[in-house]
Amino acid sequence: VLARSFTEPRPSATAVDRARSLLERALGASKVMTDRAQCEPFATDDSDVIAPVPDAVVLASSPEDIARTLEIAQATEVPVTPRLAGTGRTGGAVPLAGGIVLSMMGMAKIKEIDRGERIAVVEPGIITGELHEAVEREGLFYPPDPNSLKMCTIGGNVAENAGGPRAFKYGVTRDYVLGLEAVLMGGTRLRTGRRTAKGVTGYDVTALLTGSEGTLAVFSEATLRLVPKPPEVGTLLALFLDVRAAAEAVAAIVALGLLPRCLELLDRATLDAVRDRGVSVDERAGALLIIEVDGDAHACERGIEQIGEACTQAKALDVLVAQDAAQRARLWSARREMSPAVRALARRKISEDIVVPRRSIAPLLDCVARTSEKTGIRSLTYGHAGDGNLHVNFLWNEPDEIPRVEASIEQLFRDVMSFGGTLSGEHGIGILKAPYLGLEQSDALIDLQVRLKRTFDPKNLLNPGKIFPAAGHRAC
Amino acid sequence: VLARSFTEPRPSATAVDRARSLLERALGASKVMTDRAQCEPFATDDSDVIAPVPDAVVLASSPEDIARTLEIAQATEVPVTPRLAGTGRTGGAVPLAGGIVLSMMGMAKIKEIDRGERIAVVEPGIITGELHEAVEREGLFYPPDPNSLKMCTIGGNVAENAGGPRAFKYGVTRDYVLGLEAVLMGGTRLRTGRRTAKGVTGYDVTALLTGSEGTLAVFSEATLRLVPKPPEVGTLLALFLDVRAAAEAVAAIVALGLLPRCLELLDRATLDAVRDRGVSVDERAGALLIIEVDGDAHACERGIEQIGEACTQAKALDVLVAQDAAQRARLWSARREMSPAVRALARRKISEDIVVPRRSIAPLLDCVARTSEKTGIRSLTYGHAGDGNLHVNFLWNEPDEIPRVEASIEQLFRDVMSFGGTLSGEHGIGILKAPYLGLEQSDALIDLQVRLKRTFDPKNLLNPGKIFPAAGHRAC
Repeated sequence: VLARSFTEPRPSATAVDRARSLLERALGASKVMTDRAQCEPFATDDSDVIAPVPDAVVLASSPEDIARTLEIAQATEVPVTPRLAGTGRTGGAVPLAGGIVLSMMGMAKIKEIDRGERIAVVEPGIITGELHEAVEREGLFYPPDPNSLKMCTIGGNVAENAGGPRAFKYGVTRDYVLGLEAVLMGGTRLRTGRRTAKGVTGYDVTALLTGSEGTLAVFSEATLRLVPKPPEVGTLLALFLDVRAAAEAVAAIVALGLLPRCLELLDRATLDAVRDRGVSVDERAGALLIIEVDGDAHACERGIEQIGEACTQAKALDVLVAQDAAQRARLWSARREMSPAVRALARRKISEDIVVPRRSIAPLLDCVARTSEKTGIRSLTYGHAGDGNLHVNFLWNEPDEIPRVEASIEQLFRDVMSFGGTLSGEHGIGILKAPYLGLEQSDALIDLQVRLKRTFDPKNLLNPGKIFPAAGHRAC
Repeated sequence: VLARSFTEPRPSATAVDRARSLLERALGASKVMTDRAQCEPFATDDSDVIAPVPDAVVLASSPEDIARTLEIAQATEVPVTPRLAGTGRTGGAVPLAGGIVLSMMGMAKIKEIDRGERIAVVEPGIITGELHEAVEREGLFYPPDPNSLKMCTIGGNVAENAGGPRAFKYGVTRDYVLGLEAVLMGGTRLRTGRRTAKGVTGYDVTALLTGSEGTLAVFSEATLRLVPKPPEVGTLLALFLDVRAAAEAVAAIVALGLLPRCLELLDRATLDAVRDRGVSVDERAGALLIIEVDGDAHACERGIEQIGEACTQAKALDVLVAQDAAQRARLWSARREMSPAVRALARRKISEDIVVPRRSIAPLLDCVARTSEKTGIRSLTYGHAGDGNLHVNFLWNEPDEIPRVEASIEQLFRDVMSFGGTLSGEHGIGILKAPYLGLEQSDALIDLQVRLKRTFDPKNLLNPGKIFPAAGHRAC
């Protein structure tokens, strides 16, 4: 296998038996799967992590189901891993200790869209892309747009504090979560936050839960802030000789005081992969930017004009502006083909999502190139250049390459730290980045977070093994 | 006296003596004030709360000074109340238990403004208005603009999660804090968050500390996100027969999908107070809106045009648009005169800052009018209508009115709750709203927060008595 196995101490067989029978009695057998073959798909997610097959999968259809499950888990001391679509990239939703996987995919309703107050109240299993469509029909806009938006859910997005290309202008999931209905380990239900635009009553527990990767609480409802739907979008594609030139264009756009809604970068290796799939891209180009602005027609036109000039001054090889929807789709084709193109290059890839200060994008990519040369592990990079949030992909085919992949990843993180960056922009820490947490955060900060975790979950039963490295890992 | 006294259990005289001498030895006598007359101003803030005079005031000039103070406080078990400009409205910065007041007003440097990355790194004592000027000189913009911006500080703004009129478009302080350098009770220093635009490494401790009202940690530095300075501002003033008509205009503006940068409302009683100060306002008007848009010149012009039409359709008595800076200043004169005008009406006032859903603004003001009639306590309301964040002011002259003021406040909060609102939009809970916390939050949520507080500060020495009601208060 090319996947990597991880595990945490398992619950005892007696505890598992007790939990299973209590769950079946409390929720009905139809909501509790214990058959190994049925449970097996819940051992993996969209990373290369393989976890133990869970002992039970609960299909919750109400907050009460969640509360009963967490009550039984606490009583029997069987770990619980909350899960939604399983599209995560760092192993956040896999059950490292086996035990119970708690799925909220059956809770997928939009409960309310309030145009006057610009809020939506949703269940955690609603697909993000479906929420987009529903609110846009009302003239509203929910900005966070992770690439997996056709499959991923709001509950998962809140757990991971998901971003996406539009984050450069609009921010990330946390900026849109006004309140949560959450269930604590043991079954206590509570509401955090508010329905109003502002509110500073007590600690910001909503923000603490957002991005906590299923380790502090399970969500049964989210109240989301919406913004007016921008009436127009302008799209521009620019080709450059290399990433350095593209990065200069990005800096020039920022210096102009512009705030495009997205600013996507593809590097030379990514463009080569896309060319292999038959998308025609100027052979000289070693970097591509897709830039979108939104607002009223005049602002879009003016923004695209200024951005075009900035690209030209940064020696763009070519600048293309979409004049209609068809042209817009054509400009996005390289970006759209990217995922299958990259997947076709090797049997396995890992997509890291580091962030560096904007001005360190080109120097970081130089470091990545040097690392690839040294380790012999192929890499390619694309991502959100406005934010400095890059997805550095390492590709491999054979299990014996894994140690060199891991060496490449560690070198990447060390380089990111040397530029004052961060380990994760939108994918979370999960299990895959947990060994490296100490590179970014001090012992004092990690210790504080472990104590916060204990305050919520003293027996460490909720998604154990995630974020905080085991003692043995701390040496890295 | 018209002020209200509050107190918490005091440290012993022996503990105070020990703390004073350890502080003097560690920091030097020049940074430690113990003279009662010198310490007396630190017993009050910009609310009507009177607390005990602190036993010592520490004038910190470095993170080390903060750390030593918190180390000594922990060792001697003497409480510490962190303080900046003392412009708070809920008693957040007054030392309910006496002990040590820790002032960071001597740490007021802007350490860095980075145009390319759009961030500022500042010490906590920098005056918010001075930061505005400094970043605007670089073509950047720091949106949060509490009314006290000429006196208040970034450290205080972070502690209270301050807002201001521009929050409707731009959000509040929390939306601009990327990272903090914080000192925990006991003296442990740590850095939270990041310098990059995105980042999801670990729990969002930065957001947890923002708005924690000095009860979890003391800040020694903040890294702030900046946005491009909007090139143009458009200003419009509209007069209405009553608040109901003004609220209809607000709803119409929101329905148009517009996002003005501020949308300020003054009610009839506020207008009367302003008229008493000699500002000329159409006698028929029972409500006034000041609306500002920002962006490029075209967007401002178009926005003001659409807003003007919406106001006219909502039966505005008059709509005035500023054509230049002088006219703009004139349109703001009523708003500017408001604070002194209100202060001239009575010897004391309390300004509550509740939030209700936008559509409940007019119904809430009906409730407030009924309450005033019943209690005989005069009220007037102004505030941020876009957010539904209203400042409901109660006015009084004699100490024997205080019980009726308190009854009016409690009725206000009960009405706000019935509309699905929140107790505080931007002033925090402090001591004045602590008795009412249970109206908004469940026992489970309050209990969780108290446990979080204990995780940071097991001996309850950091700003004791704030936010969480003492057992005796819980009955309200």
